[in-house]
Amino acid sequence: MTSLDSANGPAATSGAAPAPAPTRERPDIGELVVGVLGGTGDQGRGLAYRLAKAGQQVVIGSRSAERAELAAAELGLGVRGADNARTARESDIVIIAVPWDGHGELLKNLATELAGKIVVDCVNPLGFDKQGAYALTPEEGSAAQQAAALLPDSRVTAAFHHLSAVLLQDPSIDSIDTDVLVLGDERAATDLVQALAERIPGMRGIYAGRLRNAHQVESLVANLISVNRRYKAHAGLRITDVRDA
Amino acid sequence: MTSLDSANGPAATSGAAPAPAPTRERPDIGELVVGVLGGTGDQGRGLAYRLAKAGQQVVIGSRSAERAELAAAELGLGVRGADNARTARESDIVIIAVPWDGHGELLKNLATELAGKIVVDCVNPLGFDKQGAYALTPEEGSAAQQAAALLPDSRVTAAFHHLSAVLLQDPSIDSIDTDVLVLGDERAATDLVQALAERIPGMRGIYAGRLRNAHQVESLVANLISVNRRYKAHAGLRITDVRDA
Repeated sequence: MTSLDSANGPAATSGAAPAPAPTRERPDIGELVVGVLGGTGDQGRGLAYRLAKAGQQVVIGSRSAERAELAAAELGLGVRGADNARTARESDIVIIAVPWDGHGELLKNLATELAGKIVVDCVNPLGFDKQGAYALTPEEGSAAQQAAALLPDSRVTAAFHHLSAVLLQDPSIDSIDTDVLVLGDERAATDLVQALAERIPGMRGIYAGRLRNAHQVESLVANLISVNRRYKAHAGLRITDVRDA
Repeated sequence: MTSLDSANGPAATSGAAPAPAPTRERPDIGELVVGVLGGTGDQGRGLAYRLAKAGQQVVIGSRSAERAELAAAELGLGVRGADNARTARESDIVIIAVPWDGHGELLKNLATELAGKIVVDCVNPLGFDKQGAYALTPEEGSAAQQAAALLPDSRVTAAFHHLSAVLLQDPSIDSIDTDVLVLGDERAATDLVQALAERIPGMRGIYAGRLRNAHQVESLVANLISVNRRYKAHAGLRITDVRDA
């Protein structure tokens, strides 16, 4: 046990009120194009759907341009599809939503296309056995740190780790009851990604530290999987006592 | 990104309602004695205060019986103080709230006294530098796994990692707005610890996986420290979409 309060401001009072709507000024991201690499997977497609529904320009990327175009057509909402390289080139913000297995190789091959872009890594390195999920530890410390190592000219952040693909893809659900933890070493980049998360109704983007602290955020999905099994839930996270998010 | 939903039941609808009061039957823990090793530190004292206030019999443990008795007298509420060994012997549930530095040695020396007891490890192995907090990785994987390795005859769980000592110790705050993630490999033990967490108004005890997934829960405190710095908060966690906790 460690004091969480060492670097705190004055004590805030606690309350049981639901998370308030964010009030802080956010950067204007309305005109930015968001690419989703791995956008034909459940999570990528779910995020693409939510962001497009919120009015964001979205491109879905896949190894196969054809599959990406097909998935985009199914989503509608002006979503386009392209191969991963073209998606990266044509986007301002690029969400990495591929399986951990192919993460390193994909990013290595796209370093040129991703130069200068804001990269949002949401990959969770996990293993599975009969007892469920468990954390894998990448050599670099985390998927996000691997991305930062492979993409020295990109602005790498980490976010969107804990979202339920079922909820994201369910058109009958308007608002998703979760906060999005956003990590990164550059304030302007994390501010943009927080603003992006808040395009989706119900979500707040909460700054939650530097990339060196991404591993536990990525791995926490193993715990949420246990929660989901035990409670038949689609668990998300709220951070309490944060008002000016 | 990984599907959280692989092992799920039917899709639940999402809502913005605050966490409901727990409804599930809990084991009766009213008569159990709770010891807090490291109970003279801020977190230990805060937990002792909250549990005693809720009517639990509490013993504070410290290396020095005198210091423990002094801290207990300050708390009132029937709290007793004793040295760590006696505290362990006289308790049914023993919360480990010592600094990570002394964790292994303390437990090694108390293995006999802790045999047969429910041990609740709430230690967060963290390092600190000018950029803030970062996760340390114990050889055993986590503090909780180290405890399990050193205490083969105890029933080791992990919980209470994310509580603000400031909020715990503030008598003007009646209810603390957070869930408590409870980990362990034995259902009966985690059930008891969930019930213990729920003695404190505002808290729910949520089962969140096996001990092998404790590291990320312990380390997440580094992220909450970043949250607290950025937002001048005493951040806690809520798990959304869990109703029958």
